Amino acid sequence: MDKAKIEKLVDQLGDIRTGLYQKDFLLTWRQSDADLKAVLLAAEIFEELWRAGVDARIFKGGLAISNFRDKSTRTRFSFASASSLLGLSYVDFDESKSQVAHGETVRETANMISFLTEVVGIRDDMFVGEGHEYMAEVAESVEIGYKDGLLPQRPAVVNLQCDRDHPTQSVADLLHLQKTFGGLDKLKGKKIAMTWAYSPAYAKPLSVPAAIITLMTRYGMHVSLAHPEGYDLQKECLDAAAKHAKASGGKFEVAASMEDAFKDADIVYPKSWGSMELMVQRTAALRANQADRVKDIDKQGIAKSEKFKSWECTEKTMSLTKAGKALYMHCLPADITDVNCKAGEVAKTVFERYRNPTYAEAEHKLYGMAAMILLTRFEKPAEVLRTVLRNAVPRRGF
Amino acid sequence: MDKAKIEKLVDQLGDIRTGLYQKDFLLTWRQSDADLKAVLLAAEIFEELWRAGVDARIFKGGLAISNFRDKSTRTRFSFASASSLLGLSYVDFDESKSQVAHGETVRETANMISFLTEVVGIRDDMFVGEGHEYMAEVAESVEIGYKDGLLPQRPAVVNLQCDRDHPTQSVADLLHLQKTFGGLDKLKGKKIAMTWAYSPAYAKPLSVPAAIITLMTRYGMHVSLAHPEGYDLQKECLDAAAKHAKASGGKFEVAASMEDAFKDADIVYPKSWGSMELMVQRTAALRANQADRVKDIDKQGIAKSEKFKSWECTEKTMSLTKAGKALYMHCLPADITDVNCKAGEVAKTVFERYRNPTYAEAEHKLYGMAAMILLTRFEKPAEVLRTVLRNAVPRRGF
Amino acid sequence: MDKAKIEKLVDQLGDIRTGLYQKDFLLTWRQSDADLKAVLLAAEIFEELWRAGVDARIFKGGLAISNFRDKSTRTRFSFASASSLLGLSYVDFDESKSQVAHGETVRETANMISFLTEVVGIRDDMFVGEGHEYMAEVAESVEIGYKDGLLPQRPAVVNLQCDRDHPTQSVADLLHLQKTFGGLDKLKGKKIAMTWAYSPAYAKPLSVPAAIITLMTRYGMHVSLAHPEGYDLQKECLDAAAKHAKASGGKFEVAASMEDAFKDADIVYPKSWGSMELMVQRTAALRANQADRVKDIDKQGIAKSEKFKSWECTEKTMSLTKAGKALYMHCLPADITDVNCKAGEVAKTVFERYRNPTYAEAEHKLYGMAAMILLTRFEKPAEVLRTVLRNAVPRRGF
Repeated sequence: MDKAKIEKLVDQLGDIRTGLYQKDFLLTWRQSDADLKAVLLAAEIFEELWRAGVDARIFKGGLAISNFRDKSTRTRFSFASASSLLGLSYVDFDESKSQVAHGETVRETANMISFLTEVVGIRDDMFVGEGHEYMAEVAESVEIGYKDGLLPQRPAVVNLQCDRDHPTQSVADLLHLQKTFGGLDKLKGKKIAMTWAYSPAYAKPLSVPAAIITLMTRYGMHVSLAHPEGYDLQKECLDAAAKHAKASGGKFEVAASMEDAFKDADIVYPKSWGSMELMVQRTAALRANQADRVKDIDKQGIAKSEKFKSWECTEKTMSLTKAGKALYMHCLPADITDVNCKAGEVAKTVFERYRNPTYAEAEHKLYGMAAMILLTRFEKPAEVLRTVLRNAVPRRGF
Repeated sequence: MDKAKIEKLVDQLGDIRTGLYQKDFLLTWRQSDADLKAVLLAAEIFEELWRAGVDARIFKGGLAISNFRDKSTRTRFSFASASSLLGLSYVDFDESKSQVAHGETVRETANMISFLTEVVGIRDDMFVGEGHEYMAEVAESVEIGYKDGLLPQRPAVVNLQCDRDHPTQSVADLLHLQKTFGGLDKLKGKKIAMTWAYSPAYAKPLSVPAAIITLMTRYGMHVSLAHPEGYDLQKECLDAAAKHAKASGGKFEVAASMEDAFKDADIVYPKSWGSMELMVQRTAALRANQADRVKDIDKQGIAKSEKFKSWECTEKTMSLTKAGKALYMHCLPADITDVNCKAGEVAKTVFERYRNPTYAEAEHKLYGMAAMILLTRFEKPAEVLRTVLRNAVPRRGF
Repeated sequence: MDKAKIEKLVDQLGDIRTGLYQKDFLLTWRQSDADLKAVLLAAEIFEELWRAGVDARIFKGGLAISNFRDKSTRTRFSFASASSLLGLSYVDFDESKSQVAHGETVRETANMISFLTEVVGIRDDMFVGEGHEYMAEVAESVEIGYKDGLLPQRPAVVNLQCDRDHPTQSVADLLHLQKTFGGLDKLKGKKIAMTWAYSPAYAKPLSVPAAIITLMTRYGMHVSLAHPEGYDLQKECLDAAAKHAKASGGKFEVAASMEDAFKDADIVYPKSWGSMELMVQRTAALRANQADRVKDIDKQGIAKSEKFKSWECTEKTMSLTKAGKALYMHCLPADITDVNCKAGEVAKTVFERYRNPTYAEAEHKLYGMAAMILLTRFEKPAEVLRTVLRNAVPRRGF
C-alpha cells in the first residue's frame, strides 16, 4: 500500500469544505465545485484502500436501501458493493407494484424504511419529467422526518439515475478521464464528443448524455454534443452545460453530425438515447396504464431511430479523431455491431480495442457512490478516513 | 448518551426472569407478564442505544430469515433493520410458489434453512385458522431439529403477523402508549377505542384489532371494541381480552358503534378489517385454487363493507373523545379520505394532526423485534447488553 | 470447544499443498486428491468452529454472489449461510430474463459484478451440455479481468450444480460418509448403490448421480450404478468413475436393476433423474423459446418414467442390503410415497428411519462451500484458521 499517497489524498480532502453533510446527491449541477472535488478525492481514496486490502467499514450496522424503478445490473451491484465496503446492510426495496404516489404516501414510505437507514439510492429514469421530482420528494420527506425527531439519522438520497442526470455514472467517467489523462487540470481544452448512436434496443434514458455535457463542461473541456433531429436533451441540461463552459473557459457546442463532433476529439462517447418527445408521451401512457399505447410509442421510437443507422462509431469515424486515437467511452452495456446486434452503437473492432478501459471506467462507479455516502453522512470525512488508514485492518484474513 | 438511564433499564431487565430463552414469540397471550415486561425494556434499551450511536451487534454472523406469505413493506424493513442492528445477515425466504404443506415438508424446510439461523420471522395472515398453526409447526420443527443435534442452535420463530395476533405491532403500540403517557402504570384506567373503520381496499387481517384488545387489557386499560355486525373477532381473542381485563382490573367491552367506543376515550385506534366469515371461505377457496371464487368473495366483502362507510374517524367523532383530544393510533398505512381514497378510515385533518405520532409508533416495531431476538436467543440478555454499553463502540466512524 | 481436535485438523490442512488458490471449483474430477482432502478438512474445521461458537469471519466486507439459473432453496440458503459465516455480503444476481449469451456478454457481466467480489456461486443445470461451459466462461472472464488489473481480486467461481456435476452436494455426502463410517479410510471396499428411482415430478438434473459415482470411486468404494434403459449418464462422468475406481482399488459397475445394486450395499442413494436424450431436446427447445415443445417433452418424460414405478426404495429393497441396514442417503427433497406424492422414490417408513441422517448430510453442504471459498481465496488457509482459533472470538455475545 502506498500509504503516503493515500495520506496526501486524505489531507487534500481535509482541506475542502463541502455542503454535502446531511444532504443528498441528486444533480451534479446543483453541487458546488468543492463538493465534486471532495467526491473525486474520496472515491480515489476508497479505491486505493480497497486495492490495498484495507477494511474501510466506517459503519457498524445500518441500512443502505436501493429502489430501482427500472432494471439495473451494474448500478445495483455497484451500490451493493459500496454498501459492503462501508459496512452497511444492503436491502433492495422492490416496489414494483407501487406507483408514483402523491406526497403523503411517498413521505410515509420514505420514513417507514428509514429508521436505521444511512442512504437510499434511487433509480427512476422511466418517467421523463418526474424522476428527479420523486427523488427530491423522498429527500424532503426524510429531511422533515429527521428534523421532527422521527428518524434517528437523516439518510442521504443518492441519485442512481433519474430522468435528467446520472451522477454516479458521470463521476465515474470523470474519475476515468482524470486517471487516463493524469489529472483534472489536464482535461482543460480537451475535446469530448458526446454523440447519439444507433441502437436497435428500446428507448434509453437521456440522463447519460445530459450528465456528461453538464459535468465535463465544468473542467474547461470542449464538449461537442451531436444527435439527429428529434433527439434533443432537456433545456435545463443544455443551459447548465453552456453556463459551465463559460465559467470554466471551456466550450459547449451542438454539432451537426457524429463526424463533426468526432473531428479532432480527444474522447468520444457515442451512445443511444430516446426521443424526448416520445418519452414524454410514453410517460403519460404509462401513467394511464395504456399498455397498447406504450407498445405503439415504442414501435414509433424504433422506426424513428432506424433512419439514423449510420450513426455508428466505426473505424472510419474514429479515424477523424485526434491522431485517430481518441479515448472511446461508454457506460455499458454497449450495443456492438455483430456481437449483440446486427447494427449498433459501435463497431466490434473499436469496442474490442477499448474493452478494458470501459471496464476500468465502470469500476470507479462504486467508489464514487461510497464517496457520496461518506460525505453526506459524516461531518468530518477526512478524520474518519485517517482512522481507517491508521488502523489499516486487513479486509481479508488478519 | 444518557448512560445512567440505559444502565438503569438494563438493571431492571436483569431482575426479570423470563421464559423466553430458546423459545419463540408467537402470541402475546401465551407469554407471561414478565416476558412482556422484558420485551418492553429490551426494546427501549435498543432504541436508546441506537439513538445514542452505539454499536449493538451482539451477533457476529448467522442468519435472520423472513418468510412473508403476504405483502409487507414496513414489517419487512423493520425485520431487516433489527437484523442489521444485531449483526445478523438478513435473507428473505421467498416461497411464493409453495403451499402450506403437510407436516413432513414444513419440518424439512424449517430445518434446511436453519443450520446457521438465529431467528425466523414469519408473516402468514391470509389463511384464517391456519397462520398460527403454520408458525407453531415451524417452531416445533426447529425445536426437534435442535434437540436431535441437527441444528447447531435453535432459531427463534417470531410472529410477524398471523391470522390472530400481530405481536410486533402491538408491542410497538404499547411502547408508544408507555412513552406518550409516561409509563405503563399510567395506562391503568385509560380508555382505548379499538374500532372497525371503513376502507375501500381488500379485506385486511383481523390480527391487529385482536392484538390490541388482548394486549392492552393486561395493563388495566378500558378497552372498548366496536365494529359493524359481521365483523366479529375470533373467540380465542375475545376470551383472552376478557380474562386479561378481569385480572388487571381493567375493562373489556364490545360497544355498539364507533361513537359509543370513542366516547371519552383517551386513545382511538380506528382501523379496517375483513369479515371473518368471508375470510374463512376465502381461505378454503385459496386452498382449492379457485381464483374466480376468491374474486367473488372479495367482491362480496367490498359490498358488505360499503354499507358501513359512516365508520370513519372524523373531526366529529374525535370530538366525542376525552376533551376532544384522544391520541389517534394506526399501524399504517391508513386509508385517508381524499388522500389515497375517496372515503376511508380517517379524515385528512385528523390524520395530519397525528402523522408524526403514528410514525413514532411505527419506529418502535424494529426495536421490539430486536428485543424478542435478544431474549429468545440469549440466556443472560442483561449481561450481553451491559457489555454493549461498557464497550460503547460507535456505530458510525470510530 | 475441543480446541486440540480443531488444531490437529488445522495442522493436517497446513501439510497439504493444493492447486486451489486463485482458482475455481467446478468439477471434482478435475481437482487433485490433495484439493479434495483440503476441502474436507477445511469443511470439518468450519463445522467445528461454528458449533463451538467461534466467529470465523475471515473477510471484512466483499461480496458473495449467487446466480441461480434454476430454482433452489437449500443450496441458496447454504450459500447465504457460508457467506455469513465468512463475513461476506451475500447478493443474489437475478438474471431471470437473460439468456446464455455469447462470450462477449458473459465476459462483461462477469466483470461488472465482480469488482468487490470474492466468490460467484452458479447453478446452471437446466441446459444439458452447456451448464459447465457457462461456468467455465465466467471463470475465464474473471481470470482475464484480474490478470488485466481490472478486478482488484480474482473471485472464485463455485459450481452450485451444473449439468454434469454437483460438487457441493457430493462433498457434503462424502463428509457424511466420513463421519458415519469413522473416516475416509473406512470407506474402502464399502458398497454404495447409486440408483435411479421413480418420481412423478419434472425431469431432474443428472448431476447428482454423476457427482456421486465420480467422487466415491476415488475412495476405493464399490460404486454400483443402476437405472432403467434410457437414463444413462454422460460418458465423461462414466469414464471418470471407471478411471477413479481403477486408480483407487475400488470398483465401478452398472447394475441391471435397483435390486442388483442394493444387494449387500452398505449405502444406498435412490434418486430420480431425467432422460438425457429428452433433456438435450429440451435444451434445444428452451433455446428456441418453444414453450409448447418443452411442455410436450416434459409430457414424454413423465410417460417414459411411469413405466418404471417399481424403482422405489422400499422396506423390501432395503432388506437386500447388508444386514438390511444400509445407510439411506438423499440430497433432498425426496419424493416420499404417501407423503408428498402417491408413488415416489422412497417408502415413508424407510425415509422416516433415515430422516435425521439426511438432515445431517445436508448440513455439511454449507461448510463445504465455506471450505471451497477459503481455499480458493487464501494462499495460506491454515494460517488464517489458526488465527481464527487463537482469537476464538465468540460468535454470539462477547
